[in-house]
Amino acid sequence: MELNVYNTLSRKKEKFEPLNPPFVGMYVCGPTVYGHGHLGHGRAAVNFDIIFRFLKASGYKVRYIRNVTDVGHLENDADSGDDKIAKRARLEQLEPMEVAQNYLNSYRDDMRSLNVLPPSIEPLATGHITEQIGLINKIIDQGFAYESQGSVYFDVEKYSKSGDYGKLSGRIIEDMLSNTRNLDGQGEKRGALDFALWKKASSEHIMKWESPWGEGFPGWHIECSAMSQKYLGERFDIHGGGLDLMFPHHECEIAQSKVGNGQDPAKYWLHNNMVTVNGQKMGKSLGNFIILKDIFSGNHSLLEKGYSPMTVRFFILQAQYRSTIDFSNDALKASNKAYNRIMNGLMALKTLIYSSENVTLSQEAIKIVNDACDGCYDGMNDDFNTAVTISHLFNLLKKINTYQINPQLVGELDEISFNRLKSVYLLFVEEILGLVNENPADKEILINAILELYSDFKLNKQYEKVDQVRAWFKSQKLVIKDMKSGIGWSYEE
Amino acid sequence: MELNVYNTLSRKKEKFEPLNPPFVGMYVCGPTVYGHGHLGHGRAAVNFDIIFRFLKASGYKVRYIRNVTDVGHLENDADSGDDKIAKRARLEQLEPMEVAQNYLNSYRDDMRSLNVLPPSIEPLATGHITEQIGLINKIIDQGFAYESQGSVYFDVEKYSKSGDYGKLSGRIIEDMLSNTRNLDGQGEKRGALDFALWKKASSEHIMKWESPWGEGFPGWHIECSAMSQKYLGERFDIHGGGLDLMFPHHECEIAQSKVGNGQDPAKYWLHNNMVTVNGQKMGKSLGNFIILKDIFSGNHSLLEKGYSPMTVRFFILQAQYRSTIDFSNDALKASNKAYNRIMNGLMALKTLIYSSENVTLSQEAIKIVNDACDGCYDGMNDDFNTAVTISHLFNLLKKINTYQINPQLVGELDEISFNRLKSVYLLFVEEILGLVNENPADKEILINAILELYSDFKLNKQYEKVDQVRAWFKSQKLVIKDMKSGIGWSYEE
Repeated sequence: MELNVYNTLSRKKEKFEPLNPPFVGMYVCGPTVYGHGHLGHGRAAVNFDIIFRFLKASGYKVRYIRNVTDVGHLENDADSGDDKIAKRARLEQLEPMEVAQNYLNSYRDDMRSLNVLPPSIEPLATGHITEQIGLINKIIDQGFAYESQGSVYFDVEKYSKSGDYGKLSGRIIEDMLSNTRNLDGQGEKRGALDFALWKKASSEHIMKWESPWGEGFPGWHIECSAMSQKYLGERFDIHGGGLDLMFPHHECEIAQSKVGNGQDPAKYWLHNNMVTVNGQKMGKSLGNFIILKDIFSGNHSLLEKGYSPMTVRFFILQAQYRSTIDFSNDALKASNKAYNRIMNGLMALKTLIYSSENVTLSQEAIKIVNDACDGCYDGMNDDFNTAVTISHLFNLLKKINTYQINPQLVGELDEISFNRLKSVYLLFVEEILGLVNENPADKEILINAILELYSDFKLNKQYEKVDQVRAWFKSQKLVIKDMKSGIGWSYEE
Repeated sequence: MELNVYNTLSRKKEKFEPLNPPFVGMYVCGPTVYGHGHLGHGRAAVNFDIIFRFLKASGYKVRYIRNVTDVGHLENDADSGDDKIAKRARLEQLEPMEVAQNYLNSYRDDMRSLNVLPPSIEPLATGHITEQIGLINKIIDQGFAYESQGSVYFDVEKYSKSGDYGKLSGRIIEDMLSNTRNLDGQGEKRGALDFALWKKASSEHIMKWESPWGEGFPGWHIECSAMSQKYLGERFDIHGGGLDLMFPHHECEIAQSKVGNGQDPAKYWLHNNMVTVNGQKMGKSLGNFIILKDIFSGNHSLLEKGYSPMTVRFFILQAQYRSTIDFSNDALKASNKAYNRIMNGLMALKTLIYSSENVTLSQEAIKIVNDACDGCYDGMNDDFNTAVTISHLFNLLKKINTYQINPQLVGELDEISFNRLKSVYLLFVEEILGLVNENPADKEILINAILELYSDFKLNKQYEKVDQVRAWFKSQKLVIKDMKSGIGWSYEE
């Protein structure tokens, strides 16, 4: 089985061949921590989480870097003319970093809820000022950046002569230039498309550092170039991020690395698509923007109720990462049902035991199971197509449910196929898709205890009690299952 | 009520008067992330967590900085002569930062388990190279540090003429000098007590940065001075850490700040005491060292079983932070019982309702309740004496348990005292001591459902079933309580 990935650089699917197998270096643009993470952040993180998980499950030794942008737009608006505020000194003035830490903690909490694995290294932009200054100096030395009034800009026009500017996004520099108003004589920049590598800090600015060009702070794009090369080397395997970062952010990263290090930073560029609401892009400006915490709690006008983190994770995984996902309550409700079905399958799977007593092999059943197992791998190997993988998991689930109701039927499989069914279902659900049972084990012990009492009530024909327990189960969104194999229960689907 | 804190600088308790009320700046030395956190790390974090919590509950606006030491002792032993390894390039060579991230994630997980609040800002040493270089430059400019073969050392002998070296730890420089072998002519240092502000990196060293003195990495002590002043200003209220950090680490911090900024960094220096095992200091070298994860799982030869995070938290809080704590299975078992009693009190409290129908005021009972409430505050106000506060909580608990069994008795209190009992118990248990119910709410719903069935069995004299449920409860470490007020349950104490 061969892994193919869609490379934005070439606009086609390519065979995945890492630079130094079995090592894979992957860099993904993380959040800017000045607000709580929203569904778009959740999607990007989950999409690259399953790529990280699948590469590891495929035997690669992956170093996954996801950065945190904690400097850029934070400013202090303190009225410096007011003596009382001045006296409170640094304790209040330094608030931006406390705000960043607060939202970073919030983001990490969300990631934990969504069962997103922590990346191998989670570097902060403010933690790599030295490295960013170092790379800026290299770019200046190569003659592709210039200082202007304490700031440093990248000279896009000069770089574009190499023909590389636009290679990722497909934009044509002449078109961009003709669409840009000329700021002749007004700004610090030589060309309208030039972007800042370093910005001079005004005196009110709190987040600033010493540099060869005076006190300032790094530009938007340089952090990712500096941190990716620090932890993965000047050339690495995968660079990922949301589609909205392709231009200008990733285009600028390529420019910085090509000038600074003489080569393209990444072999494969992967971009996840956006979340839409009723077909419209989800965004702050449109007011259709939902933070993850609100989705979990249900506290938002667009939400009919709260949806659990695993429901949201499943909702994200139902689409391949390059498709858009349309948010709706109906879609989330459907995801919740499907997620519960998958979890009920996990519970059922644990009760299934292969017995060599009732073997009546069915070549058709054996083929169904093995095709579905292959299909799980094939889906992921085809550019991480979780939608396809999930459809094959449901084929396995049909078999699991059949065998739970009628355990003798497992005899239609040979033992190897039976064991493969079990191990592939577990591997893909838990390890690769990262879907885990949200209900604590304690709870299931208690449910089993009640079910034991229920069985006795039934046996003793205490139908009032039987009804009482049934009603109670229903209120807890649990289902009692009367099967040939005995009485069991499952989560409502 | 006035807060008094023991200041290591003055060796006595002092009235706590922050520099800029209501703001409080607190800096505490955090972990070095090259191993899993152990009980000593847990103790330090919990001790300063309750100080953070109590200051906030007292109305202060606290900025709490707890750093992460992620550079210092990590080296790469790669055999650079081997071509294959050289080819694997940076991906494997950069492992130290991945290791640091891994243990930092582990530490954060432990802190979450122990219900330690995240600090306001959690700065990394590697994230503040620029700031450390800046402070070193200031110290060189003042003539108290010198460069030697690419490293920079602090001149302790010169500084000691100010009379300040030893002011925190009480050490006398002449004694230290006479105990030190003279390394004349051998080392880079001028004086045997001089400490490194910056170390030249050897070519194998991976964690290194550009500096005015060539490639290197910061010394052990400078990070805390640089980061505390960055986020709290040159002078702030509280500096905390373990007693083992008093010398040389904190003594050196004072020296660096006094020379660099012309003043003592902190007004109050607080030090938590150590954990001992059978009276012996817990430490790696003695082999009596237990990591937090092992305590939770029970996977260690010194442990008879695992102890839950809240049991460990309670164990730590049973002693005042300046006393030693002796680790033993008996002590942890006792902590578990006591913690369960406190939690049962929380559950009981929620069922208590004041009724104006059966009021028969008892001045004695009113006094007991109000004295215990005052005692909770007094304990914390007396240098954060959690041991005293907990003893008063148990006095409140006695009353809560009495009222649960016999609800009519609440009438011995006036309504104000009754409400005070409830709010003080809740405030101190949950907010200030940070003790929370480890059992999920779901579980309690299920237990109540079973208890309902149990009540019916009892009513219908189905004694076999009654015994069955009783046995099952026992197996789950739950206790059925037959009380005047009805049938209830609690966690086994």
